[in-house]
Amino acid sequence: MLSASKAVSAEDLVRETIVSIPALNPAWHQRAVLRLNSLTKPLGSLGRLEEMAVRLVAICEEEFPDCANKVIFTLAADHGVTEEGVSAYPKAVTRQMVLNFLSGGAAINVLCRQFGIEVVVVDIGVDGDTEELNGLVRMKVRRGTNNMASGPAMPRADACRAMQVGIALSERAERDGKKLIGTGEMGIGNTTAATAVAAVLCGKPVAEVTGRGTGLDDAALHRKIDVVERALRANLPNVSDPIDVLSKVGGLEIAGLAGLALGAAARRIPVVIDGFISTAAAAIAVAIEPRVKSFLFASHRSTEPGHDALLKFIGLEPFLELDMRLGEGTGAALAMPLIEASTRVLKEMATFSSAGVSESHL
Amino acid sequence: MLSASKAVSAEDLVRETIVSIPALNPAWHQRAVLRLNSLTKPLGSLGRLEEMAVRLVAICEEEFPDCANKVIFTLAADHGVTEEGVSAYPKAVTRQMVLNFLSGGAAINVLCRQFGIEVVVVDIGVDGDTEELNGLVRMKVRRGTNNMASGPAMPRADACRAMQVGIALSERAERDGKKLIGTGEMGIGNTTAATAVAAVLCGKPVAEVTGRGTGLDDAALHRKIDVVERALRANLPNVSDPIDVLSKVGGLEIAGLAGLALGAAARRIPVVIDGFISTAAAAIAVAIEPRVKSFLFASHRSTEPGHDALLKFIGLEPFLELDMRLGEGTGAALAMPLIEASTRVLKEMATFSSAGVSESHL
Repeated sequence: MLSASKAVSAEDLVRETIVSIPALNPAWHQRAVLRLNSLTKPLGSLGRLEEMAVRLVAICEEEFPDCANKVIFTLAADHGVTEEGVSAYPKAVTRQMVLNFLSGGAAINVLCRQFGIEVVVVDIGVDGDTEELNGLVRMKVRRGTNNMASGPAMPRADACRAMQVGIALSERAERDGKKLIGTGEMGIGNTTAATAVAAVLCGKPVAEVTGRGTGLDDAALHRKIDVVERALRANLPNVSDPIDVLSKVGGLEIAGLAGLALGAAARRIPVVIDGFISTAAAAIAVAIEPRVKSFLFASHRSTEPGHDALLKFIGLEPFLELDMRLGEGTGAALAMPLIEASTRVLKEMATFSSAGVSESHL
Repeated sequence: MLSASKAVSAEDLVRETIVSIPALNPAWHQRAVLRLNSLTKPLGSLGRLEEMAVRLVAICEEEFPDCANKVIFTLAADHGVTEEGVSAYPKAVTRQMVLNFLSGGAAINVLCRQFGIEVVVVDIGVDGDTEELNGLVRMKVRRGTNNMASGPAMPRADACRAMQVGIALSERAERDGKKLIGTGEMGIGNTTAATAVAAVLCGKPVAEVTGRGTGLDDAALHRKIDVVERALRANLPNVSDPIDVLSKVGGLEIAGLAGLALGAAARRIPVVIDGFISTAAAAIAVAIEPRVKSFLFASHRSTEPGHDALLKFIGLEPFLELDMRLGEGTGAALAMPLIEASTRVLKEMATFSSAGVSESHL
């Protein structure tokens, strides 16, 4: 596998990463099922917790995978499309929220403190100066995207560089011994980009996958639908080339998170997807290489209508129904303890024989 | 409020407890909403996490409720109806699993260790000797119920005594400073009792609310439906008298958990309901006194069809979709961190003004 830090073209690195993504070995699934069936509970009665455990065993190729060392990458970037008035918040909020993340006052910080998750905040495309910010990972590809309503959000090379950043983050996670990666983002205007990605990948009418984002009124919602429709007409993104979709109507954080999913899969690190924007990124990764899906866990179902469409596109069912629509990685943070629970059940529960419990007589 | 330990009749204690259950004061809801709206996130974007926080503020009548001190009561009892062959496991497993709980090897133990929840295991009606078991709370009302297929599961006085045990447990939780109570149970045959309760309370045909419990095959499922139908014909439980329903077709752990919900509500301690059997108990409590509902949180939606019917009867929507059907309190354990998260968000997040983040311009 090529290293993200070596001097190769970004798109070459992406291709190398894709090629190195393994398929899961069903022999490991079998081993996990045998173990689960020996534990003191009716067969299969822990439902999807058991499915998680089985998949984690196969991902990690370990009898008892341990997910305790967890990280969420929150990628921040700006969107030129905000000049169309598609968000309830001014663009400056992206950078302001980066500061909030760094000082520990955002929702993602609160949840990650509770669950012992490291938060890594990455400037992958904030349209503002961030040099002076302590604790920020500075991997800015460019200062936000262009307005996709009138042309490509960014050149293909920039989309690939953003994916390269995500792959580099997966390398960092591996180096730090992280066993579970969550995806998060911050970017005023990014539900508009995710909506465009969802419409293209899922082949749905724009109106069906457009939501109110951070809180649009009816007039602004109709403007947003119109903007996405214009972006699709202006750019004609090629659905059979997901990197083209990213560069035409995506975003830097979306491309980064797509790269992160590819890189994590190549390194056998399971990934917990957050909400609408993170799922758009995961869907791009799966469209590029379907083997990625085996490494992904969906956390929650957001109220954004496009989120559900993207989850169906990937073929994942979330665990949490909390009607959230915040992003940052908050849904991923809430789902991580469930995934960790599945590994603890596998390892710590008594077996029927060790506990002297009678088995089913059916 | 009468104390559960004073010498009054069990049914008098239950009545006194019911009378002392408060209605929530909407002024506290308002305060919580104002606080949530000042935090650095789009209005309402934490969805049901915000609803939890609002309700907890009103339950506890504190600006910043703290749910960190958590307990799950796992009530164990036997069911005479097992002689009809309604379970995949022999009756002896109830006592065997109590031993497993006490030695920390069951699923509930694993999850409670992960999330810092105390597990209190209570013998409220195990049909076996438990005197020698260390760590068990012995409050046995009787050695299991009678076979409800041919007569009442227990006399009304025993159902009331079991409710009294639950009320005493809520007193114990209050004394121990517990701020969040989870309900759990163990009892071979208890999905049959919960099914009968669900059919009566929800007014549904038995076949619609009967599931496979711990893993019945088709023949056993049909036998279970027939047994519940016979129990309803033999006992004619009075839907307008929930204690009559408990004594005719309930169980000792179901009555105990109904009492626990009433007692907790009277003490303003929020309760997290586990799965099918725990929800049957909560539904009985709500049928007795609808004000209880404000103190209840549903955790997960089990695969037992009667569970969904009971959740609708109470009017609660669960947070987790994990296809679990284990009981013990396992779903409640997994939901407790979410509820705790809502209180941490309320207390720890920065406000727009403290973080210098611009507010919505809509």
